[in-house]
This record gives sequence, C-alpha cells and structure tokens, in this order.
Amino acid sequence: MTDRSAPIGVFDSGVGGLTVLRALQSELSGEHFIYLGDTARLPYGTKDPDTVVRYALQAGQSLIERGVKALIVACNTASAVAMPAMAQHYRGLPLIGVVHPGADAAVAATRSGQIAVIGTEATVRGGAYQRAILARRPDARVTARACQLFVALAEEGWTEGAIARAVAERYLGPLFGAEARERHESADTLVLGCTHFPMLRDTIRAVIGTEVAIVDSAAITAATARTLLRERGLINGVAHEVGARPLQLLATDGAARFAAIGSRFLGRPIEAREVELVDL
Amino acid sequence: MTDRSAPIGVFDSGVGGLTVLRALQSELSGEHFIYLGDTARLPYGTKDPDTVVRYALQAGQSLIERGVKALIVACNTASAVAMPAMAQHYRGLPLIGVVHPGADAAVAATRSGQIAVIGTEATVRGGAYQRAILARRPDARVTARACQLFVALAEEGWTEGAIARAVAERYLGPLFGAEARERHESADTLVLGCTHFPMLRDTIRAVIGTEVAIVDSAAITAATARTLLRERGLINGVAHEVGARPLQLLATDGAARFAAIGSRFLGRPIEAREVELVDL
Repeated sequence: MTDRSAPIGVFDSGVGGLTVLRALQSELSGEHFIYLGDTARLPYGTKDPDTVVRYALQAGQSLIERGVKALIVACNTASAVAMPAMAQHYRGLPLIGVVHPGADAAVAATRSGQIAVIGTEATVRGGAYQRAILARRPDARVTARACQLFVALAEEGWTEGAIARAVAERYLGPLFGAEARERHESADTLVLGCTHFPMLRDTIRAVIGTEVAIVDSAAITAATARTLLRERGLINGVAHEVGARPLQLLATDGAARFAAIGSRFLGRPIEAREVELVDL
Repeated sequence: MTDRSAPIGVFDSGVGGLTVLRALQSELSGEHFIYLGDTARLPYGTKDPDTVVRYALQAGQSLIERGVKALIVACNTASAVAMPAMAQHYRGLPLIGVVHPGADAAVAATRSGQIAVIGTEATVRGGAYQRAILARRPDARVTARACQLFVALAEEGWTEGAIARAVAERYLGPLFGAEARERHESADTLVLGCTHFPMLRDTIRAVIGTEVAIVDSAAITAATARTLLRERGLINGVAHEVGARPLQLLATDGAARFAAIGSRFLGRPIEAREVELVDL
C-alpha cells in the first residue's frame, strides 16, 4: 500500500517547472512536494534523446528513493522522450508529463481545429506536441513556433511592459494577426508548451485577444495530477495551513541562481539555503 | 620548428566564438582556421570550474591533434578559468583567451577609470574581467551588468530595430544615462564581455552615444593574436583569395542549428554539411 501522506515528486531540468509546482500546490493544497531541478545539466532540449532518458531515470530514481507516491515530469523535453522508459522502470507509480495533458486540453478547447503551439526551439523541433495533438485529432492543423526570447524574458523577470509586449507581438502576430485571420489560418487555441511561458500569460493574452483559448500546460498538468491521484485514492486528506505547505527544493547546481529566479516562478521568495544540492 | 602554414585553432562552447573567428579572418587573411564549438555541453558558464578546465583541455587536445600552430580560446568562461591549465599542458603553443586582451584594451581606452563590463550572468558573476581590469589599473571603478537578453536577441537575429533598442536602453540606461552622469558614475568605456554582443554593436552604440569607447573583445583578441603570431614568426605569408579562406568547422552536436545561427555570427552562409560532428 502506498502511503497517501507521502510526498509528490516534481522533476524538471531547471527552474521552469516551478510554474508547474505552483499550479500543483494550488490544486493539491494538502500535499507535500519534493522538487528536483537538474540545473547542472540543463538545457535538456539540445541533448541526445538517449542522454535525456538517462538523466530522467536518474532524477526519477533520486525522487523515488525519497519516497514519492507520484512523479510529475515538468520538463517538456523529458516528457516528450523519457516517459515510456520511466513508465517501464517505475511500474505502478503514478507518472504524469506535461505534453499529453497539454495536448488533451488543446483538443478539448479548439473549435476550428487550428491550434498554435509555442515552446523552446528544442520542443518545437522535436514535434512532441504536434504529434500528440494529431494523434488525438487527426484533422487538426497545428502551427508551432519557437519563442526563445520568452525564456530569457521570464528569467530576467521582464514579463510585462513594452519590451515583453513588443516581443510577444513579433512572435505571435504572424499566428494571430489580421493576415492570419484573412487567410483563415488564425488559431483559436494557443498551447504554452514551455514551463517558462505561463509567466508571460497576461502579456500573451493582451496580444492575442480574448477569443483565443490559452492552454497553460502547468495548470492542466496539475489538474490531471489531481484527477489521477484521486482515482488511485492517493490524495492526502489533511489540508495544511495556507503558507505552511511542506516543500523540499533540490537542485544539482547553483542554489543562489535557483533561489533568485525560482522565486519569481514559484511566486514566493526562496532563500538559497532552502535549496539542497544533490548529485544524480 | 612549427609549420607557419599550419592552421589556427579557435575554441568556444558554442557559436558565439564565430564573432571572434570572423575578426581573426579579417586580421589574418592568409590563415587557415579550425573552429570547434562544444555545442553538446554548452553553456560552460553554469558549470563547475574543474569541469570547464576538463572540457577545455579536451577541446584543446582535439585541435592540437589536428596540427594547429596556435590556439584561441574564444569562450569567456574557459578564458577565465582554464588558461593556466591549458598553458601548462600546451607549453610553447601560442595561446590567447578573450579576457586579458579585453582588459588590456579597456584600460588603454579609459580616461576616467570608470569602466562598464557587460556579459552573460556567469561571466559577470565570475568576475574575471573585473579582476583583470583591477590588476592592470587598481584605481579603476568597474561596474558589471549581466545582459542575458542580448544573447537571445543575437541568436534570434533580432539585433536591430525597436526591440533590440528597448532592451539595450533598459540594460545600459542605468550605466550611461543622465542619472549615472549626474552621479559621476557614467563609464567612459564599455567592454563587450560576451562573444554574442558584437552582433548588437550598432544598437549598443546608438544607445550609449559616440563618447563612450566600446571594447569589442572579438576584435581585440584578433589583433592580439596577430601580434603574437608575428612575434613568433608564425604568420602565413601566402594570402588566400578573398572568399577562399580555408575553414574547418567542428561541433559536438547540432550541425543544423550551428549552421543556422552560426551563419549570422560568421557573416556568411554556413551549410549544415560543412559542420563536422566530433566527439571530445
């Protein structure tokens, strides 16, 4: 029997997954979380898939040794390439990535079947969201665009204001602007396929207007995790006091940077001394 | 006796060093170059110094096995931490990093002693430029600022226009704006301490005005290399035809991305098939 009071493990290549953790804390307020950011080896997106599988299995193993009752893969690259291997190694453990919940939500949200996916260069090139959407709705038309500067803007904390707005207009104008609408190529659904991008949600919303559905894979992943844990009877019944959610933060390098940037992503101050450095 | 017709090796963690290669090709038009970008393991800046030393020695060894007569370390991080180990391993080989030539030029250019250094987060935090400048001029006042978005702008090719200008104003305004001048803290010299930043030189110049000296470490490193090779009698006498400069491009991963982004940095189209993948 799995102990329902056991922690939930969340794994990412860096700090981006803290947006997923934040959504999870909001959905599952009675849970204890252990977050592991493999900051020493980021980015995963440019690495060989075999390497990413190896890293993901090491990270998963490290969280399992800490007694987690479920594992959330908040990293897009690992979600795209390492889920089958992880499922095989951790048989029976609830395991949730960010790509499939995002694709489910996109297909549920679209009316026209025209879906836009934005992510990092590596995520867009890898095509995992595109494949997952087409597997669910073969007549969907998926446009994908890498929005690399959104990552830098989110890490710099420049998520609002004139610069963020201008960058969003430049990336998203071709997907949602007047010309795309005239060609009937304007998507009615936008998937935020990078854990950094929810940080820019308000700016993106201002640029694309209120008609387009935004699929925030952090929020959807958290909702999916809650459903799965409930099905398995693994929800921890005792709600913690607000502000007292138990959380362990692990990183493989750079506690100070993790704390500085992570504070914005998690939405509350993180002290460098809260971040435990681990070897994988 | 070293063969003066042997190639010059240029090493970087990625494509940024191609700005240094471009400057070298311009200074040393009769030379053959081998450029090695360790794209599989970038970024170096967030890695442990011992790891960077190990990587730099592997890259250096790989270039030496290809018969280079000199080695240019175009990577700021490797220049800051690996030069002593490389000098010890490659005794007698002309070896030039980007940090010391940049510091020399900054100290030569400044009148007031107030010098600003911009670089990546890792370069600024590491403090190598700051230390090198203070070692040369102990009364210098050095302000350093990480300009992380410049890297993303350079890689995206958004080096001119409203967005680049607004980003440059936001980063550089506090260093060179009216308030800094009123406090007499405005620098008279700006060191571009990242190999990506020469791509934004025109935009940076437009923001800081014509009074501030810009030290472009790519250009200074190339000039330093020419001087050192001349002193050692290693300049290759036979100038190649313009456009026929022999160049070998090596990378440890991602030939297509190297070619796409590298083309902008090198200032001429690179085909993915020109990029040879190597293991270090």
